[in-house]
Amino acid sequence: MDSSSYKSKNKVKVKNLEIGGNSKIIISGPCAVEDYSSMLKIASKLKTIGVHMLRGGAFKPRTSPYDFQGLGIDGLKILGEVGKVVELPVSTEIMDAREIETALDYIDVIQIGSRNMYNYTLLKEVGKTNLPVILKRGMNATYKEWISAAEYIAMQGNSNIVLCERGIRTFETATRNTLDLNAVAYIKHYTHFPIIVDPSHGTGLRELVYPMSLAAIACGADGLIIESHYDPEASISDARQTISIKELKRIMSELNIC
Amino acid sequence: MDSSSYKSKNKVKVKNLEIGGNSKIIISGPCAVEDYSSMLKIASKLKTIGVHMLRGGAFKPRTSPYDFQGLGIDGLKILGEVGKVVELPVSTEIMDAREIETALDYIDVIQIGSRNMYNYTLLKEVGKTNLPVILKRGMNATYKEWISAAEYIAMQGNSNIVLCERGIRTFETATRNTLDLNAVAYIKHYTHFPIIVDPSHGTGLRELVYPMSLAAIACGADGLIIESHYDPEASISDARQTISIKELKRIMSELNIC
Amino acid sequence: MDSSSYKSKNKVKVKNLEIGGNSKIIISGPCAVEDYSSMLKIASKLKTIGVHMLRGGAFKPRTSPYDFQGLGIDGLKILGEVGKVVELPVSTEIMDAREIETALDYIDVIQIGSRNMYNYTLLKEVGKTNLPVILKRGMNATYKEWISAAEYIAMQGNSNIVLCERGIRTFETATRNTLDLNAVAYIKHYTHFPIIVDPSHGTGLRELVYPMSLAAIACGADGLIIESHYDPEASISDARQTISIKELKRIMSELNIC
Amino acid sequence: MDSSSYKSKNKVKVKNLEIGGNSKIIISGPCAVEDYSSMLKIASKLKTIGVHMLRGGAFKPRTSPYDFQGLGIDGLKILGEVGKVVELPVSTEIMDAREIETALDYIDVIQIGSRNMYNYTLLKEVGKTNLPVILKRGMNATYKEWISAAEYIAMQGNSNIVLCERGIRTFETATRNTLDLNAVAYIKHYTHFPIIVDPSHGTGLRELVYPMSLAAIACGADGLIIESHYDPEASISDARQTISIKELKRIMSELNIC
Repeated sequence: MDSSSYKSKNKVKVKNLEIGGNSKIIISGPCAVEDYSSMLKIASKLKTIGVHMLRGGAFKPRTSPYDFQGLGIDGLKILGEVGKVVELPVSTEIMDAREIETALDYIDVIQIGSRNMYNYTLLKEVGKTNLPVILKRGMNATYKEWISAAEYIAMQGNSNIVLCERGIRTFETATRNTLDLNAVAYIKHYTHFPIIVDPSHGTGLRELVYPMSLAAIACGADGLIIESHYDPEASISDARQTISIKELKRIMSELNIC
Repeated sequence: MDSSSYKSKNKVKVKNLEIGGNSKIIISGPCAVEDYSSMLKIASKLKTIGVHMLRGGAFKPRTSPYDFQGLGIDGLKILGEVGKVVELPVSTEIMDAREIETALDYIDVIQIGSRNMYNYTLLKEVGKTNLPVILKRGMNATYKEWISAAEYIAMQGNSNIVLCERGIRTFETATRNTLDLNAVAYIKHYTHFPIIVDPSHGTGLRELVYPMSLAAIACGADGLIIESHYDPEASISDARQTISIKELKRIMSELNIC
Repeated sequence: MDSSSYKSKNKVKVKNLEIGGNSKIIISGPCAVEDYSSMLKIASKLKTIGVHMLRGGAFKPRTSPYDFQGLGIDGLKILGEVGKVVELPVSTEIMDAREIETALDYIDVIQIGSRNMYNYTLLKEVGKTNLPVILKRGMNATYKEWISAAEYIAMQGNSNIVLCERGIRTFETATRNTLDLNAVAYIKHYTHFPIIVDPSHGTGLRELVYPMSLAAIACGADGLIIESHYDPEASISDARQTISIKELKRIMSELNIC
Repeated sequence: MDSSSYKSKNKVKVKNLEIGGNSKIIISGPCAVEDYSSMLKIASKLKTIGVHMLRGGAFKPRTSPYDFQGLGIDGLKILGEVGKVVELPVSTEIMDAREIETALDYIDVIQIGSRNMYNYTLLKEVGKTNLPVILKRGMNATYKEWISAAEYIAMQGNSNIVLCERGIRTFETATRNTLDLNAVAYIKHYTHFPIIVDPSHGTGLRELVYPMSLAAIACGADGLIIESHYDPEASISDARQTISIKELKRIMSELNIC
């Protein structure tokens, strides 16, 4: 890794958005796509407050095979349709290389989740598309391993890569993960990648999303990806870290993003 | 997890071998399959000293996409042919669900590597075969996550699963990983899975393979998977942790395995 | 730990300063007190730019007993005299309960270093004084252990406690430590303790001190403790993480602290 | 650290015992000294089965200042008297440099606990005595830091040092700590220090003490320090990891130590 600060930074285009440019990007939505009407309800509200992109899990990687695994292809379709209705780009996690082709029909940005950062088979396949990729950091990946994972994508020809810091596993149990904002400052200083931050997984606690969102932007993050819901307590998964749309508006307002 | 010790343990059959039974199983071979003649030379020597199964990497997951990635399908074929010549079952890591079918023609046991323990897509596909699976523990996976990964395989119908402790990442830099032998004692006491230990990756230091092999068997491991080479220093990869065949014989002799 | 946000926060007075109140406090100085003239030179410059308190190590806990261990009592005296000359309160780490009494003559704030957070003998003795205490978090202490360490001090009658997040040990090697800003948001939300942040040890990299200082304040820190020197490269210790006084001024200016 | 295996190993004498020599040493007793009669009862039973040294905590470092902190000096006296009655050397943890002198009257071996491995003030004072020292590894100390801590003792003139591996903190929650037996193999290969293992703290689970004791000896440990009680469930502290005297006898018998 070069020790000088990169002068020219990559910018990743998603329709008319630019990640890594002068504006901070807000990506939001529920942890999991639950059904068409609730997804549309959330999306409409997010559009109103000025959110730039929708997120929602269709394929959910879960520790136990007996837990809810997401709506799958049906979730992809709902997300895609809702995105068209509210005129916002959409992003979701893909876990299986064989689902990429289908995904291309419905989504604008592929997410690679934390558990798949070392899944080089998947990274290479994603690298063969030209869809922008949000590459989440592995739960205990070093910066070097994370950047190398990005190179697995880039070497196939796809350089539309946005890194996403989502917290690492530490000994702390009061928070779900430990958000490593050093990573943001480091990536901005030493590499050309845009980087966004996920304070929802990074803290696991709804009440810490606001302060950590401000901190992430303060040290240079290009955007935030935040789990929100019109009724956070009713979320199928990750309720404890999901914020209300009102709270999201408060964050965006404090950051002058609207 | 139940607090009583399991009375009936699973036993996994590989041809005429039984993993998890009364005998301790030794699996050995080079880190990577390099070429037919060196593979045959190693295999012949291992057969002579009484090793039960051959290992050798055909697909090598590497942090950097620019490092040697293994011989791929050619490596599979070499391994399979050599196994037939010396009459030993063979085992290798599979990283891509689409390669499983090909692999079935050449190998007897599938390994899931540490980086892919959370790759639920791959686990499910492996679960659809009836080939025995060696499931390595993720670099920082908890026992619960590891056992859940095994359940991803088992719920598809394949219960021929052998867990493999291969060391976890800790703050220690003098060793490559920290071999967690508590895991062996825990898995043997609380679950029905057979478990083997990889002291090569678990220490990263050739000189520690002997003592840690003895320790692994002492706390109940059902076998060992050890990187060996007739000329360890000449190994393409992992030379520092590869032992000579003479040293392997010393370990087996101390353990009364011949 | 209570789940409701504390309404009334502790404020710790140091002469005419208040830590935990409306103003953000900047504590700065060299890693180690080197000699009277350089300490005076640094202190004078820091006073000029509006720094609120001086720091400088007299007793240096070092991994190796053969490394420079600080000037000891002589360092205490230099620090105390310089503080009087420039009219700024001074703070330094105390490692031995038997040195507290001497320290009381020279310093205004006692620091408990990371290695001594679990040194309950020392914590109790510090608790018997009424000097304000900056309690650094242990290298891998959980929030609960850290708060309990503060209680060891408080139960002796001294509640003038300021917590200090200084980074935790993780697997990352590109930075010296991983600054855990979740800790700041958590401590501010769930406890009544003031908390400051040490971005110097928290990153170990001079170029990351600026962004991480902004992030720390953004998520609610009550102040910063930063290693600075008029000639950073010439610092006896921790040169790589020491910033220039000009860079410190840039941080304070960006934070509107002057 | 030298890369060659040390030929001449240190041996630490405790009365007529030798730690680091040909015989394996068993140190046992309750977590905390509770009262004279129960201590005597345990000690008598341990003497009968051939245990070589007694242990029992008089000063207990506890995370919370509100938890039981041990009997203090009274505990020291009880331990010392019981040791004389049953004619066994005794060992206990010292946390405060000012208590060393008193301790010299009652105990034969000083223990430095995990929380105090970085307490250089205490290490230096212990180094000024000539009492044998059992130096436990810090909860996340690297081998290098641990060896350096031993050097803090040795440089004061006391080289009667025995290292003790007692488990490190990892992400695993099923066990209390992760026993790092690589440390044993490493210390034996690369240094001249004797090393013993504490499988009680190293696992936190009574049922894993037996297999991990065997593993520790198998990879070269010079002895074991094990928490035992005639009625494990009734232990004031650490009941979950305390074994019965019958179980201890089973371990010693399997290891041919009697």
